[in-house]
Amino acid sequence: MRAKPLDRRVFPVSFAAMSTFRLTSFRTHGRNSFGAVIDAGMVDLGGRLGGRYRSALELIAAGEQGLKDARAAAGTRFADYRLEEIEFLPPVLGPEKIICVGINYPERAEEYKDAPRQKPNYPNLFVRFPDSLVGHGQPVVKPKVSDKFDYEGEIVMVIGREGRNVPRENAREMIWGLTLGNEGSVRDWLRHGSLNVTQGKNFDHSGSLGPWIVPANELNPTLPLHLMTRVNGQVRQDDWTERLTWNFAWLISYITQFTTLKPGDVIFTGTPVGAGGHQTPPQWLKQGDVVEVEVPEIGILRNPVVNEI
Amino acid sequence: MRAKPLDRRVFPVSFAAMSTFRLTSFRTHGRNSFGAVIDAGMVDLGGRLGGRYRSALELIAAGEQGLKDARAAAGTRFADYRLEEIEFLPPVLGPEKIICVGINYPERAEEYKDAPRQKPNYPNLFVRFPDSLVGHGQPVVKPKVSDKFDYEGEIVMVIGREGRNVPRENAREMIWGLTLGNEGSVRDWLRHGSLNVTQGKNFDHSGSLGPWIVPANELNPTLPLHLMTRVNGQVRQDDWTERLTWNFAWLISYITQFTTLKPGDVIFTGTPVGAGGHQTPPQWLKQGDVVEVEVPEIGILRNPVVNEI
Repeated sequence: MRAKPLDRRVFPVSFAAMSTFRLTSFRTHGRNSFGAVIDAGMVDLGGRLGGRYRSALELIAAGEQGLKDARAAAGTRFADYRLEEIEFLPPVLGPEKIICVGINYPERAEEYKDAPRQKPNYPNLFVRFPDSLVGHGQPVVKPKVSDKFDYEGEIVMVIGREGRNVPRENAREMIWGLTLGNEGSVRDWLRHGSLNVTQGKNFDHSGSLGPWIVPANELNPTLPLHLMTRVNGQVRQDDWTERLTWNFAWLISYITQFTTLKPGDVIFTGTPVGAGGHQTPPQWLKQGDVVEVEVPEIGILRNPVVNEI
Repeated sequence: MRAKPLDRRVFPVSFAAMSTFRLTSFRTHGRNSFGAVIDAGMVDLGGRLGGRYRSALELIAAGEQGLKDARAAAGTRFADYRLEEIEFLPPVLGPEKIICVGINYPERAEEYKDAPRQKPNYPNLFVRFPDSLVGHGQPVVKPKVSDKFDYEGEIVMVIGREGRNVPRENAREMIWGLTLGNEGSVRDWLRHGSLNVTQGKNFDHSGSLGPWIVPANELNPTLPLHLMTRVNGQVRQDDWTERLTWNFAWLISYITQFTTLKPGDVIFTGTPVGAGGHQTPPQWLKQGDVVEVEVPEIGILRNPVVNEI
């Protein structure tokens, strides 16, 4: 189950070292907490900093001080739990908003056409509810009512501060960090409505978020990120953030033209081409499949597929 | 600013007496609380029951016991605040989900056609964020970026218990109560995406919810409800729940086929024909207008329109 070698011909870059701070939420011994993943396992920030921050969301809302406190507490060689003892939860529990961007990378074939692609003026935006997402390692659930269960690998922004009408040049300050998402979709239910894809995007446990958040200030903003989605080790989606139709700063500026973004809000930034429904013939997810979403600077979000029981 | 007399020819009904228990959230002296509206004003349930329930949402989640405690506390002739001393907030603050149904009453003209209308199989569903809604009496805000600001009067269900795959015959038990909504819309931003109306439905303070929730067990389920929307006293939308394309029980059963509804979740049940954008010529909302949404058994939700500053 290995990825094919990276194709760096188009965008030769050197990758940053793996981030040393990785924030997530987790469950162990019947309770929820949040923590930092280190080589030795999970540092229980909920246990160590619980007097100051009751959740990852509160830590994020505390801005620089929260990150500083979390880094200090995580600066240990000793973990509180081995990763085998915990279940990953979505890194932020109970965000006010989970906003998703529709397809946000152009068709590959368009690169070779003479005429530039007619870019839409604005993206499709839709919303997911928290229960539609599980954490890293947890199973995503193919519903009984559909055989058209699909993956969409995405980079996900986690918002760190409140903002409305944020200019593009200030948008980066709004991003607390990045994580990964499988924006799992039930294709036939996407089109129940003549407009709006709400139903097919919100089946309980149909998608995932994680494994953790890497703070934005540990990522080099001048380097493009390489986003890959694999099913059972086979690369299905493979693209670079340089090719985003609407980049992260544009999205934050646009979204804050109508709504106030707040700490902990989550923005799925859209998927490349190559979802299962767009393969010929379509390749729907089935029980036993394993979906992986990877950006080397962030990590790998891995989820097995199970049937709804 | 009076409504025209009700037309009861089609559905002659006798109205139930005004509910004696009305739950809402409010703000006074710089703090948020929740309470019951009685003739004399607001009974501060937050002050009286705060040890047991910290919010209207927690009271709702407590089911029968919560309602019993609230009724007992509100069974007084003495209010804690005159209504002039408080600001109404949306009755439930911070619901996990605000789900909206697209147009849900057929065209009037269709009643007179020989062929029955081709009913869509499923409704359009979309999502609003909490900040897009203000409480009763608070101004709704026409954004600077659009002149196509519109009203949509609706009946709104507030969910009282958790449920997934709820059969239609059990759906009524899921409804804690009903309130009213102005599902205010920015028409040109509705169509920024080729699918999905998220943007135009989520401008901060563009809609409203309230004035309060009437518990479902105080409403006679065998009687249709008469829904009216007025702008500056002129009736613009006027319909009855008997004509709903998808009725309340159907909606709950359908929605819980993909997501788990939870206490405090809010469902806007769709609007009749007659929104301003569908008038000839279109009648957009402007500063100084007053929008009223009324169902006699629930109350009147009234909001003035102001320009964004």
